[in-house]
Amino acid sequence: MEQKIALIGFGTVGQGLAEILKNKKAELFEIYGYSYTIVAISDMKFGTVFDPDGLDMEKVMSEIQSTGQFSSNRMDWDAVETIRFCNADVICELAFTNLKDGEPALTHCTTAFQSRKHIVTSNKGPAALAYHQMKSLADKHNVLFMIEGTVMSGTPVLNLASGPLAGCQISAVKGILNGTTNYILTQMESGMSYESALQQAQELGYAEADPTGDVEGYDARAKVTILANVVMGVPCRIDEVDCKGITQITAKDIESAKAQGARWKLIGSVEMVDGKLSASVHPEMVSLTHPLAGIMGAVNAVTFTTDLLGDVTIVGAGAGKIETGFSILNDLLAIHKLSLPEDLS
Amino acid sequence: MEQKIALIGFGTVGQGLAEILKNKKAELFEIYGYSYTIVAISDMKFGTVFDPDGLDMEKVMSEIQSTGQFSSNRMDWDAVETIRFCNADVICELAFTNLKDGEPALTHCTTAFQSRKHIVTSNKGPAALAYHQMKSLADKHNVLFMIEGTVMSGTPVLNLASGPLAGCQISAVKGILNGTTNYILTQMESGMSYESALQQAQELGYAEADPTGDVEGYDARAKVTILANVVMGVPCRIDEVDCKGITQITAKDIESAKAQGARWKLIGSVEMVDGKLSASVHPEMVSLTHPLAGIMGAVNAVTFTTDLLGDVTIVGAGAGKIETGFSILNDLLAIHKLSLPEDLS
Repeated sequence: MEQKIALIGFGTVGQGLAEILKNKKAELFEIYGYSYTIVAISDMKFGTVFDPDGLDMEKVMSEIQSTGQFSSNRMDWDAVETIRFCNADVICELAFTNLKDGEPALTHCTTAFQSRKHIVTSNKGPAALAYHQMKSLADKHNVLFMIEGTVMSGTPVLNLASGPLAGCQISAVKGILNGTTNYILTQMESGMSYESALQQAQELGYAEADPTGDVEGYDARAKVTILANVVMGVPCRIDEVDCKGITQITAKDIESAKAQGARWKLIGSVEMVDGKLSASVHPEMVSLTHPLAGIMGAVNAVTFTTDLLGDVTIVGAGAGKIETGFSILNDLLAIHKLSLPEDLS
Repeated sequence: MEQKIALIGFGTVGQGLAEILKNKKAELFEIYGYSYTIVAISDMKFGTVFDPDGLDMEKVMSEIQSTGQFSSNRMDWDAVETIRFCNADVICELAFTNLKDGEPALTHCTTAFQSRKHIVTSNKGPAALAYHQMKSLADKHNVLFMIEGTVMSGTPVLNLASGPLAGCQISAVKGILNGTTNYILTQMESGMSYESALQQAQELGYAEADPTGDVEGYDARAKVTILANVVMGVPCRIDEVDCKGITQITAKDIESAKAQGARWKLIGSVEMVDGKLSASVHPEMVSLTHPLAGIMGAVNAVTFTTDLLGDVTIVGAGAGKIETGFSILNDLLAIHKLSLPEDLS
């Protein structure tokens, strides 16, 4: 059965996803029996397009490249109307992340669930601010809230914990969850000043014009909150996560760590301590023999501490257009797999 | 629906699995809705027991501890008869690994599939010597051939590739796949001779009395063969994998690597080169900045090279009673999940 997709937000991730879906159309059908059509796209800049039989994505792309607007199949729906009225099975919520009140993504998710449509999203807002409410609402309407891309883009974290680690109890999750700060710390270790390293990160597209969200640890804090709620299953509000960024780290701190056979890393962690959840983001001086010490540049890594397997660490990209697009694809494939009839019983 | 399990082989892994299932009975039901009974066990040393309503595992354990034999519910079935005649849904094949001809495990698997019973196994024999035949036979009888535990015990490799990495094309898999040799190389780096390091590995239970399978690279070669067939999907015979162990590595080699800012690792790898599969196991001098260089002691690690995510590395235990028992549990849970009715469509 063809999966009908709507994209809410058509910026970097949405376009990355569209590119992957287009390039892999034959491969995905051959390997997974997966076929799809994109029936609607709603974007604040480009407007809204809808075709219940599937949009001609080449035409859509060429129109926005030439005019900066959707034109054929244009509708006067906003995002919420698109979610309600279009015939998609799955809404890919790819609007901007807002960690203050989660909007407009929260409303997008709520609307989708009430319309009995699955949500797949890499948006950290709803997952970090209202995971349990969203999950309950999705459950109530018998649809899914899929959020792999919210932590390490497509590098598996949430789907790893819920699938191949199922059966383990996870008592702690600890990692390097922000590539920008890890890149800055790596550059500082090779002698660069904080200011130059930040500027370089901005030039490379790792850090935004306003780098506050990264360097103050807020991005990592949102991810820690998601790990607490989703992987540990313990309700945790974002303001319950102790948070300190890397802006206070000086060249002298870096040198002093080096002299001690260690290096600074911005570490996000959640763990159960005496039956209580402890969650934090802060710079830590880790010994060079520590498994997270070798994670350099814009790479991310996370270590799960488990009862049956000891420590399991996964290392990979933490951001990127195609990497995040992949996280959406992987969740779309999981929904497809779940909706197939199984004849194993 | 209660899953009915039979265990073929009741050595370290079988007893590890029984221990996990017993300790986690309530937890597994609460979290995954999973319930099970062990209906049969057949072991070369202890004999065979069978109860279609489920064995009393406490009695079974206490009997073998006191008499070295199963006694209550004893049957005169051998392993093959147990697989054919018992009422299990899933056969856990936990007999010894034989990389010469795969027996008796191959016959166990074949019998199970022909009896329409799933196989879950950590036995490298059938997976390394006859993966495609086994998979086809399982498909033909509409049952599953689940083999997570054959590569890195419970640390996810095959289930990671097929699940959370689904949608990626994997063009290479490379890793440290044998803990014994990695432990020996780690100890040699701290000044120990090969002989003493091997002896220590034997004392710690990492290496067997006859260490040939580990130190000559044969164990890693079987795992590389499995990765080629399962993860890359390319038919590959075990004798097509170039294989060299660590027995030729001298203290001088170790020193010379150190002087070059590198260290020796026994690396197993499969990759597509000009459309052809290249598979090998051999000692490699890797730079200290290489992601696999930091994997020390008995730990294993594997790096997937993918089209959409770049490199993704997973690090964890590669052996152990409970770790391998977990691999079986995770596959049992996956079968349970697949047999649940889904009402998402």
